[in-house]
Amino acid sequence: VGVLTGAMTRVDRHHAAALDRADSLASRVDEFVVDDPGLVYFDGNSLGRLPRRTAARLRRLVDDEWGSDLVRGWGRWIELPTRVGDRIGRVLLGAAPGQVAVCDSTTVNLYKLAAAALDARPDRRVIVTDDGNFPTDRYVVQGLAKARGLELRQVATHPVDGVQPEAVEAAADADVGLVTFSHVDFRSGAIVDVAALTDLAHRAGALALWDLSHAAGAVPAELDAWEVDLAVGCGYKYLNGGPGAPAWLYVRAGLQDRLVPPVWGWFGQADQFEMGPAFEPAEGMRRWLAGTPPVLGLAAVDEGVAMLEDVGMEAVRAKGVALTGYAQSLWSAWLERLGFTLGSPADAALRGSHLALCHPEAFRLRQALIAEAGVVPDFRGPDILRIGLAPLSTRFVEVWDGFDRLRDLARDEAWTRYDVAPGRVT
Amino acid sequence: VGVLTGAMTRVDRHHAAALDRADSLASRVDEFVVDDPGLVYFDGNSLGRLPRRTAARLRRLVDDEWGSDLVRGWGRWIELPTRVGDRIGRVLLGAAPGQVAVCDSTTVNLYKLAAAALDARPDRRVIVTDDGNFPTDRYVVQGLAKARGLELRQVATHPVDGVQPEAVEAAADADVGLVTFSHVDFRSGAIVDVAALTDLAHRAGALALWDLSHAAGAVPAELDAWEVDLAVGCGYKYLNGGPGAPAWLYVRAGLQDRLVPPVWGWFGQADQFEMGPAFEPAEGMRRWLAGTPPVLGLAAVDEGVAMLEDVGMEAVRAKGVALTGYAQSLWSAWLERLGFTLGSPADAALRGSHLALCHPEAFRLRQALIAEAGVVPDFRGPDILRIGLAPLSTRFVEVWDGFDRLRDLARDEAWTRYDVAPGRVT
Repeated sequence: VGVLTGAMTRVDRHHAAALDRADSLASRVDEFVVDDPGLVYFDGNSLGRLPRRTAARLRRLVDDEWGSDLVRGWGRWIELPTRVGDRIGRVLLGAAPGQVAVCDSTTVNLYKLAAAALDARPDRRVIVTDDGNFPTDRYVVQGLAKARGLELRQVATHPVDGVQPEAVEAAADADVGLVTFSHVDFRSGAIVDVAALTDLAHRAGALALWDLSHAAGAVPAELDAWEVDLAVGCGYKYLNGGPGAPAWLYVRAGLQDRLVPPVWGWFGQADQFEMGPAFEPAEGMRRWLAGTPPVLGLAAVDEGVAMLEDVGMEAVRAKGVALTGYAQSLWSAWLERLGFTLGSPADAALRGSHLALCHPEAFRLRQALIAEAGVVPDFRGPDILRIGLAPLSTRFVEVWDGFDRLRDLARDEAWTRYDVAPGRVT
Repeated sequence: VGVLTGAMTRVDRHHAAALDRADSLASRVDEFVVDDPGLVYFDGNSLGRLPRRTAARLRRLVDDEWGSDLVRGWGRWIELPTRVGDRIGRVLLGAAPGQVAVCDSTTVNLYKLAAAALDARPDRRVIVTDDGNFPTDRYVVQGLAKARGLELRQVATHPVDGVQPEAVEAAADADVGLVTFSHVDFRSGAIVDVAALTDLAHRAGALALWDLSHAAGAVPAELDAWEVDLAVGCGYKYLNGGPGAPAWLYVRAGLQDRLVPPVWGWFGQADQFEMGPAFEPAEGMRRWLAGTPPVLGLAAVDEGVAMLEDVGMEAVRAKGVALTGYAQSLWSAWLERLGFTLGSPADAALRGSHLALCHPEAFRLRQALIAEAGVVPDFRGPDILRIGLAPLSTRFVEVWDGFDRLRDLARDEAWTRYDVAPGRVT
């Protein structure tokens, strides 16, 4: 964050341009398709931009591989779930080979891992998560708790700082079979101490399942070193795999023989094409595949991760810290006095690559930003404008432009021109 | 099949060309990418060919929608699972709107529907399927039976004629909660009487779950009229959705309120973006979505189904019947004397759009066909060369060429040049 020294008083656009000139990753923005250079895209943590190499790979895949190789393409495609998985493990997760596969959605992967973990702790009657965890994470364990007659303990999430270790420690007793949280809070961006909370789970005798959707590709992870048991993450945010790209899942090597997925599918069968009478789970990560994996999305994820590999996660993280730090300085200079509070940890080292700006009219301000200002942030209820700053595809001048336009709209009370959503309290 | 009158003695290539000239769907082949006109593709029922319109749609989707609209594309994409589902229902399934969604893989959809059906019959301890059902179908219910301590009754499948009603009637007693079979047998191609077997299930008080993967897009279905409860099918065979395209699922309208999926995900939540504390299943088919649906694959399925809609399933089916009938006549004229037996029903009206040719060296013959003859069939153990004849993309001369080359290789005992797979008995 050294580059930001003095930035708190340097809020003119020239300074942003200077930050871009000093940014070793600045040229990476040109590796993405950007056909409206005036658009400010603050939602790369919801859907990452399209890398040029991905557009090319998908053309080759569709025209040459599907179009020409036809079913013979499976000679190559069949390796993708584990090959791309290994790349994700190496580049993003601090995971040795053979522990990551790419398949299905984050939700389905959460379900598979949580169900298998509970099967491995049949005498434990409690699942622990937090009430600020991403909705799908909470719903998956609600469903499993209901189906199995288990208790779900949802510890309170601190709105800015995320899950608190004390709360987890209090909840994680000897009845708990599974503990599941997110590495980066989808609202506030708070980074949780994965190793420490995993250790609390292990002391209680529980397995720990982590969702890295808002972290992977922005915040480095060390899943092996942190002794994480299970993890999942999204393919379409910082991994730039495109809308509905498949997700990944991680199973610690030492656990792999002991866990069996609840969905027994032919892609998880030991000898898939023998098509034998009884399901026998494949060795390693292949058992976690269920049906035929989505090849187009797999190839797109592969390209996105290759971009991150080219740059290295250390540089990606440094850029992300600099971007949210710079955005914070603009908030402090312009927006705090206009009624915005910071809904993220004030220390950039403690948050991922997005910033939560809280404002009572956030819902309508987002509409104004999109309709009138060419700025695309996200909204998270009840009052958060979520500013996602994808490290590889965001320039400092883009941050400046977005905040400048937001400031003008807020001064102008632009939200009065937009309806509140039916039934929604802003 | 009128067009085939006299074909049994007309086995020269000119006759095949004449059949093509008389075929009202012949020009449809040009709507597919075919860059090796010499290739004989007999595996469109494993991976359908690439339609030109699909290549164009995917380019627009990637470059314009993802590349330019970015996250705003979800305004359109979010409707795809149910909009494409309704199109599949209308064109392929005889299903009124609001009963089909496209999402996840066939395997995951089977799991979701089977689990929900068992939840709806909690006092029933038996699942019925057949031992010749597609592997993933058998494995899914094996897994559910194991997890819930249920009995799995696998009735014997007739190798040529598929599941027999007498066997089902004997197995479907008052302990059965779920009955699940395939509409078209993946090996023999036998068409099962869905309405009759569903009725047997209902008389026993069970729910009926059908897999139409090898039928939909080749054999018309009337799921509403047949009173089917639940169904799934594949997106990448006759629907031409590309490798790993998402599957579809059908839930009869009258059952929708009573069934809740086992996987509770945010795309199945009543008010998804409210992100409220408790999962409340959405009305209608949306509750069956779990995670973020795969947009690229959805768009590709949409185009494939649109092609089928242009032609109409009646014409598609007539072409499929003519193709397998013609192939049968070539088998009879050339291959029977070379040791091939017909592993499919002899009446084209009783089989789908593929033909099983049984030969003790089928495994090695397939290798010879691909490596030496530019013919791509499939192999299904222990002894089946599976000849898939996708109605929209296959010409009669292509069938002639493929059978001509197969005859030459068989005469030549070409299999002796190929290894038997390790551990495989041919």
